[in-house]
Amino acid sequence: MKIRQLFDYDTWTYTYLLWDEETKEAAVIDTVIEQVDRDMQHIEELGLNVKYLMETHIHADHITGAGPLRKRTGAEIVVHKNSESQCADILAEEGDVFKLGEQEIRILHTPGHTNTDITYLIDGAAFTGDTLLVRDCGRTDFQLGSNEDMYNSLTNKLFSLPEDTMVFPGHDYKGFTQSTIGEEKKYNVRAGEGKSYQDFSTIMDNLNLPRPRRIDIAVPGNLKCGNLDEE
Amino acid sequence: MKIRQLFDYDTWTYTYLLWDEETKEAAVIDTVIEQVDRDMQHIEELGLNVKYLMETHIHADHITGAGPLRKRTGAEIVVHKNSESQCADILAEEGDVFKLGEQEIRILHTPGHTNTDITYLIDGAAFTGDTLLVRDCGRTDFQLGSNEDMYNSLTNKLFSLPEDTMVFPGHDYKGFTQSTIGEEKKYNVRAGEGKSYQDFSTIMDNLNLPRPRRIDIAVPGNLKCGNLDEE
Repeated sequence: MKIRQLFDYDTWTYTYLLWDEETKEAAVIDTVIEQVDRDMQHIEELGLNVKYLMETHIHADHITGAGPLRKRTGAEIVVHKNSESQCADILAEEGDVFKLGEQEIRILHTPGHTNTDITYLIDGAAFTGDTLLVRDCGRTDFQLGSNEDMYNSLTNKLFSLPEDTMVFPGHDYKGFTQSTIGEEKKYNVRAGEGKSYQDFSTIMDNLNLPRPRRIDIAVPGNLKCGNLDEE
Repeated sequence: MKIRQLFDYDTWTYTYLLWDEETKEAAVIDTVIEQVDRDMQHIEELGLNVKYLMETHIHADHITGAGPLRKRTGAEIVVHKNSESQCADILAEEGDVFKLGEQEIRILHTPGHTNTDITYLIDGAAFTGDTLLVRDCGRTDFQLGSNEDMYNSLTNKLFSLPEDTMVFPGHDYKGFTQSTIGEEKKYNVRAGEGKSYQDFSTIMDNLNLPRPRRIDIAVPGNLKCGNLDEE
C-alpha cells in the first residue's frame, strides 16, 4: 500500500492518501474542506480511483472535505457507527475490513477523544486519528471523550500492535509526522511506560485547554460531511 | 535506511533524520536552530549515533541547528565545497559517498537555488533541498542562484533518476510532504513535461518574490553553522 501524507497548515491536520499500486484503488483519510481542490488535483495526477473517504472521528477543529470529494469522485464516506452522521454511506465498526485491490484496511474502535474514533490499520501502519498522537494523545473533554476509554484504547488496543507498526497521527503540533508503536509504548508522555491510569487521568484533568475555536461550526458541519450548502 | 521527516512550522522547513537500523548510525539533513532540543530528544529516544549533520545549502530563510547539534553529538557538519562556510567539517562535492553502517548517502551537486545545493541520495530516495520542491522549485534570484543551473539540475540531473525515487523537499508551502521523480517529470509546474528552458526562465523571472525576511541574519548565521555566540 502506498501512503502519501498531506498537511493542512491552518488546523495542523494530516490527511492521508492510501492506494494500491496495482489497481490504483484509493482511500483518503481525514480530508479538510479548504484543501479539496489540492487533494483532487493530486488524486488526478496520481491516477487514483478513490473508493473510500474515511473519517477517524467527527472532528471539532476543522470541517471535512468528504462531502465535496464524494461529489467529485463517487467514493463512499466511512464513519464510525456511533456517530450521528446524516450523510455517511458506511457506518463502520471494529472488525470491518475494506479492500483496495488485494490490500486491506481494517477497523479498530479506539474511543477516548470522542466515542466515534477509528484507527485504520493496514499492513505495517496505523492511522490513529486523535487517539494516539506522537508522544501525546487527543484531549478527552468533549464529544463523549473519556479518560478511561482513551487509556484503554492506547494501552490495551494500540500498544498491543507489533512494535514496528508505523503510527500516522491525525494532527501534530511540534513538527512530528510519524512514530512507531514501540516508541509510543516507551516514550508517550501521557500513557507510555510507567504511567498508570491514575497518572494519565491526572494529566488529562489538568490540561486546561481552551474550547476549540471552531467546534460550533465544525461538529454540525462534519455531521453533514462538509456539505455546507445542503439542508 | 530509516527516514523520519520533521517540520518547522515557522519557516515551513523539513528536517530529515536518516539512520541505519542495524548500527543506529544516523545523519540529520537541514536542522533548524529553534528545534535543536526537539531533535536532540528524538535522537536520544531513537537511540541514534549521529555521524553527520548535512546541509542541502546555505539557507536564507532560517538558521541551521548544526553547530549546536555538533556540540551535543560530536557529529561532523557537511556542506558543499562552494560555500564559504567558516565552520563545516567536510566540504563535499559531487560523487562523495558517506556511510551509515553499510548504507550509503551519495552527493549530487544540484545548483540553481544557490551555488551550494546538494541533493543527498540514498537507495530509493532523494533529499532535494530547495532545488526540486513538490510540483515546484526553489527561487533563483539571490546567493548565486541561476535559472540555467536550476533548469539543468532539475531536468538533466534529477529527472534522470529512476522514476519511483521518492523526493523529499527542503520546504513545502501547500502541505505536500513528498513526491516522486516520475510525478515531478510529468507535473512539475515549472520544469515538468513540455516546459522548455525559455518557459522556465520566463516563469522564474516573473515571480516577484519579496526578499527573504531573515536573509541578513540567516546567511551569516549559517556560514557560522548556527554558532551564534562565537566570533
